[in-house]
This record gives sequence, structure tokens and C-alpha cells, in this order.
Amino acid sequence: MSKILIKGAKVLCAEGSVDVADILIVDDRIATIGSVGESADATIIDGRNKFATPGLVNAHTHASMTLLRSYADDLALMDWLNNHIWPIEAKMERADIYWGAALAAVEMIKSGTTAFADMYGPCMEEVAKVVDESGMRGVLCQGLIGIFDGDRRLDAGTALFNEWHGKANGRVTVMFGPHAVYTCPLDYLKKIADTASKCGAEIHMHMNETLDEINGCLKEHGKRPFEVVNETGLLDLGMLAAHCVHLSDAEIDLMVEKKVRVAHNPGSNMKISSGICPIRKLIERGLVVGVGTDGASSNNNLDMLEEIRLATLLSKVSTMDPLSIPALETLKLGTLNSAKAIGLKDVGELREGLKADIVLWDMSGADWQPNYNPISLLAYSAQSSSADTVIVDGQVLMEGRQLKTLDEEKIIAEFNACFKRLTGN
Amino acid sequence: MSKILIKGAKVLCAEGSVDVADILIVDDRIATIGSVGESADATIIDGRNKFATPGLVNAHTHASMTLLRSYADDLALMDWLNNHIWPIEAKMERADIYWGAALAAVEMIKSGTTAFADMYGPCMEEVAKVVDESGMRGVLCQGLIGIFDGDRRLDAGTALFNEWHGKANGRVTVMFGPHAVYTCPLDYLKKIADTASKCGAEIHMHMNETLDEINGCLKEHGKRPFEVVNETGLLDLGMLAAHCVHLSDAEIDLMVEKKVRVAHNPGSNMKISSGICPIRKLIERGLVVGVGTDGASSNNNLDMLEEIRLATLLSKVSTMDPLSIPALETLKLGTLNSAKAIGLKDVGELREGLKADIVLWDMSGADWQPNYNPISLLAYSAQSSSADTVIVDGQVLMEGRQLKTLDEEKIIAEFNACFKRLTGN
Repeated sequence: MSKILIKGAKVLCAEGSVDVADILIVDDRIATIGSVGESADATIIDGRNKFATPGLVNAHTHASMTLLRSYADDLALMDWLNNHIWPIEAKMERADIYWGAALAAVEMIKSGTTAFADMYGPCMEEVAKVVDESGMRGVLCQGLIGIFDGDRRLDAGTALFNEWHGKANGRVTVMFGPHAVYTCPLDYLKKIADTASKCGAEIHMHMNETLDEINGCLKEHGKRPFEVVNETGLLDLGMLAAHCVHLSDAEIDLMVEKKVRVAHNPGSNMKISSGICPIRKLIERGLVVGVGTDGASSNNNLDMLEEIRLATLLSKVSTMDPLSIPALETLKLGTLNSAKAIGLKDVGELREGLKADIVLWDMSGADWQPNYNPISLLAYSAQSSSADTVIVDGQVLMEGRQLKTLDEEKIIAEFNACFKRLTGN
Repeated sequence: MSKILIKGAKVLCAEGSVDVADILIVDDRIATIGSVGESADATIIDGRNKFATPGLVNAHTHASMTLLRSYADDLALMDWLNNHIWPIEAKMERADIYWGAALAAVEMIKSGTTAFADMYGPCMEEVAKVVDESGMRGVLCQGLIGIFDGDRRLDAGTALFNEWHGKANGRVTVMFGPHAVYTCPLDYLKKIADTASKCGAEIHMHMNETLDEINGCLKEHGKRPFEVVNETGLLDLGMLAAHCVHLSDAEIDLMVEKKVRVAHNPGSNMKISSGICPIRKLIERGLVVGVGTDGASSNNNLDMLEEIRLATLLSKVSTMDPLSIPALETLKLGTLNSAKAIGLKDVGELREGLKADIVLWDMSGADWQPNYNPISLLAYSAQSSSADTVIVDGQVLMEGRQLKTLDEEKIIAEFNACFKRLTGN
């Protein structure tokens, strides 16, 4: 039995209050939040001047795409894909997927992220290895593109599920990942639904991201994306739907009926000019809305604090309501709601009995002064580099900004070697 | 004669290229960018794995309002002002203005900002002292509110000009600061114009920030704010206009004619739901558009890297054009264009003969990998905490993230003591 005792932190409790308290972690779970006496068998972490919150959860990303960060920015979408991204992705090997995801894990842990939902491939088992080794929590899926090697990819997705679902003390879970309605023919989507259903797996899919997607779908199918996907059975399996920018009222009704969970990606949607996801409307309809960064080639980082801040700011200005998504709700977008969105149980709040996925934010910097309202400071002011200590599943992944499970220097060197081999730069 | 030699940095040159080069600083200016041999009388700074850029320039803020950061968020505007902000501001004393601005200086230097335009008061001479002592560059003005002690404030503004304009080796300049058209009657604006004109001073003013302001102005004057202000002579003195969210075509024509310089404040405009300033349209009309954070009580930080990123992302999504404000233009918004906006000469580019206002960004973090395109990485990915070394006017204000001119620990303690006295918290 391992014990960690965090002494005297300001704790963001599940009820939304901030209390000075100790947190006792026993094995992978939060045993006590309150006043806990020191005991000889517990590792002590000094929580003074630290803000303890649930770890941030990145509800939609493509971790290995860190390799393409800032490689080809400020281009029109099809030029970007055809002439820059796809040619490089076609060259990616097993090692690239691994080191790309490892760099992503470094970046995520150092900015306070403890779990992420990832869609990429081939070789998604390399991402699973990174999740296993880093100590993070990962909800992984093989991206399934019907128009390009569809059956082989679906087999890879099934193998990923069989090999990795529930592994690493449950830190790895696996979904099936149809890429999008415009890259997957109807019969392929049905085949995915059948296969996922047999596995008892959920679905992670890009939905309604751009107007081009909507218009193409209307032209091809005479229906909108959610209506098309509904006919395939995919919505009945439990869906994490990324983007959801352009939605008809009928589609929102369908999402409510099918309990679709949304990953909002404001940075990517703004940078690529996809549009603005109407998150407040979706939340008011009772939908679960989490937040994700999308891949680093369209964002261009994996900073979840920046992302939830974008989410609240964009909601406030697009609704012209300064009360839209207040500070506590903003933090919940990136913690509890993102955890729900990606299908994690027992994660996303600091509550006795839940998994110990905890970030201690250092409140000593100027961006945390006056040190009066930590919730508002974290939502609206703090830099993600104030993440000081990160714990996942009861294991310390970072302390005093030093990574404990990953070799940051080696990862950066190997990562840049991959980039050089892929691009010649 | 003092000499600093930065060896082997990646340098963002004024032409927009990134070259590995040395930078020789002699006294307050950049003497050479190129290959420079070491000499015994120069202090050497290792530039390897650093990106050298012009310092960021915050084109509109209220530095001492850091005291009110996250004190009263997520409230409706009039509740926020009447019941929270104004009662505290009414209690502010000389020491509060000083320590508030000192905390702001710490925050700005640590996030790579070298100059700022500030409007606040009373006791703006305390902000001038902070500029003097910190080594930063400040363009200061006493906020002038006609409906509240107007004449006394105008006298204070004139005294500030007489005492501080051009002081600290030219690092302090002073403007006149009519607060806004809704807080200054027409005859008061004319009086300010007369006084500023006699001094040869420029104007810094909030313009066209909210729809309420526009509608109130139309109701009171039958004209829009820029049309009203034009009748007072203020536009003929050189104006830094903050916000400029809601503009008619006729007003934009007037701004072009009068060469109004704009401080765009995307974070504040989003958070308070003021609206979206059409910066691309303004830039296409040839107007100078810089970027500012606004005060920390409505933003809630002074992080200029976050702010220029918001500016480009908001422009891209609001124009639905992913090519709007590319990476290099994004950096220029916060450097050269902000410098021009606030009336600084010889600042905002790395070019021989210009003032040595330089930031070295540490490129060792995950957010800087792959280390291929530093311009895009700084604009779209990097955290402002990667600001490693900050030089202003040839003086090192920070090196290896250690402040050289300010006592960070003391400032944070004194600042929180002020907050406690003001609020009881």
C-alpha cells in the first residue's frame, strides 16, 4: 500500500468551495480530504501556497502530431493537407508515433494535463506504450478512414482494443475512431458500428467541424452529418464527438436523445476558421461538453489552460453575455466535463473515493496575485507553467516541475531526430 | 560606455527573416547584428537555443489595477463597477498605485513585455517611479474624468507631463488621457485638447468600446464617439485609441484621415462581451493597430503573448479566413505596431541603430518543438514563461528568469498587504 499526503493546500473541492486541507492518497485513490495527521509511511508533499485541483483532461487531440507543430502554418486548408501534412504523415513510422506522443506527454504533464483522448494511427499501440510508461491516462483510438486502407485500419483498431483496453491499471481505455463523415462511406461506418458493438466499445469521431463538411454531406447524402451517422448505429454506442461547430436544431435534438458527448476545440476552430461551437446552448440542453486542444499542427499547443480560457472568452463574446461560462464552470469544462466526455469514471473531481488525478498549481507568481480567488485566477489569469506537481492514479508524474516518469531531455532529442528524418529540417 | 554581446541567438530580423547571429549592444542601442568577435569590455550573454525578438509592447493597460485582479469576476458590468471596483478604487492611496504598478512590472517583464501604455490615477507619478526604477519603458497618462473632479485631474495630468515627460533617458513619455466620451462632457474634452496642445502632448483615450457607449453617445450628441471627439480637436493631436470595437464606415474614414492609432484589446473585449474589433479591416485601411491587455481586472493578466494570440485567433474566426493575420504579422502586432501605436520611436524591431529593447526566449521547452519555425512557434505555441532574458534601453532587466532591477518577493508581499488593507481579505 502506498500513501501520499499533501499537507495544507488550498483544495478545489467537488462542491466548488476552496478549503485549506490535507489530501491523503492511498494507492490510486483519494482516501481523505480534510485534516490528516502525518504518518511515517506516507510520502509528504508540501501543499502550502499551492492550489490543488483535479487534473486537466484533454478531450480531443492527436498527440503524435506534435511532430508537425508549426511546420506549415498560415496556409489554406487543402494546400496545408495535400502539400504539407499528408506527405509527411505518409512517411511516419512506428518511432515517429512513439516519440511524437512522448513529446506530447511531456508537454501535457508540464501544463497540468493528466488524461487525454487521442485519435491517430497507424501504430496507436505506440501511444498506448507512452500512456503506460508516462503514467498518464489515455483514451485511445485508431483513426479509421474508409477511403484509405479502411479494412486494415479497422483491424488495427480492433487489435488495439483487444490488446490495450483496460490495461495499465485501467489507465488505458480504447474507443473506435471513425475519422469523419467525409472520409468514411456509409457502409464502412456501419461496419465500424458492428465491430465496436461486438467489443462493447464507444466511438470517438470528428463531427460537423466545417461548413464544407456540412455542405458536402448534404450534397452526398441529402442529410446533415449527425443524421447520416445516426443511421449507422454509431450514436447508440456512446459517442465522443469532436468539434460540433455547425449544428442544426434537429441535430442538437438528436445529440440530446443519444447523449452524445462533445469535445469543444476552440483554438483549432478559431485558427483554421472553422467557426464557433455554440457550447452554452449545448450545455443548456443538458449535453456534456468537454474541451480539447486538437492536434498541435492546428492549435499549436496542448495547453489545456489556454484552451479552457479560449472556451470561456469565445463563449462570452459570441453570446454577448459576460456571465456565460463563469470561472468555476470554465474549470469544470476542462476537468469533470472533459472526463465525462471521454468516458472516464471516478476522475475529474477531488472527492474521497475517486481516483487521485491531482495537479498542484504554484501560486507564487505575479499572475496569481492578489492571492484571493484561486478559481478565478486559474481560469482567467494563471499560466499553465505554474503546474508544479502532477499526480495520476496515485503516482507522482511531476514534482517541482521535474518529470518523474519521463526523460524530457532524451525525448526532445529523439523527437527532433524524427522530425529531421521526416522533413530534412 | 557599456557593452553587451549576445552570442549565437536565432534573431528575428527587421526584414522578417530568422538568422543565427550575434547582437552587440552599446549603451542603449543595438550597434551590430551579425558576426561579432568577443571583446574584453563586453558582458557576454549566451544566445544559443534562444530566440531574440523585439520586446513586447503593451499598447493599453491600467497597471495598478492588478490589485483588483480576479477580485470580482463574472458579474454584470454595472454591478461590477458600482459595487466592487469603484468602492475599492475610491480607497486607493499612493502606496497602492505604486505597489500595484510594481506587481504589474514584475508580471510584464517576466512575460517578455518591455514597454506599456498606461492610463490610471490619481498619483500617476508613482507609476512613473516604477517605470524609472524597473528600467521599463512607459507611456503614461492621468485618466481624466470630467464628471468626477475634472479640473483637479487635468491639473494632475499637466503636472505629470511637466515632471516626467522625456525623463529616465526618454523611457517615460506622457500623454493626456481623457477617459471616454461618456465620462467627459464636450467642454471638458475641449479643455483637455487645449491643454495637451500647449504641452505638445498626444492623447490616449477609450473609444467605441461597447454598444452602450455608442447608443448613449448617439442619444446625447446625435453623433457617434469619433465624430464627437473630432469636434474637440483631440484627433488632431495624435491619438492612441483603445478598444475601437464598434465603428461606422464614416468613423473609420475619420480615423484614417486623422491617423488615429488603435490599441486592440481582444481579451478584455471577449471577457466583458464588448464585441470584436475588426482589426483586419482597419489594417487594410492603413491604420496602425497595436495590441494591449487592458487592466488585469478585466483580462485577467498582462500576458502579451496570450493577447496577440487571441488577436490572431479572433481575427481568423471572425473573418472566417485562416490566412488572416499570419504568424509574423501577429508578432508585429505586439511589437512594432504596438510601439508605433503608443508613439515610441526607435523601438519595436531588431535593427542596428534602434534602441536595445530585446527579449531572449528559451526554446528548450516542449512547446518549442520541433524547433523549426520560431516565428510560428512564438505566435501560436510558446508560453510567455519562456521569456528568459529581457533587455530594455540596453539594460538587463531579467536574465535566466531572475529579475535584476526589481525585488519580486518584496513587491508581492507589499502588494498583498495593499490588497488586504483595501478589501479586508
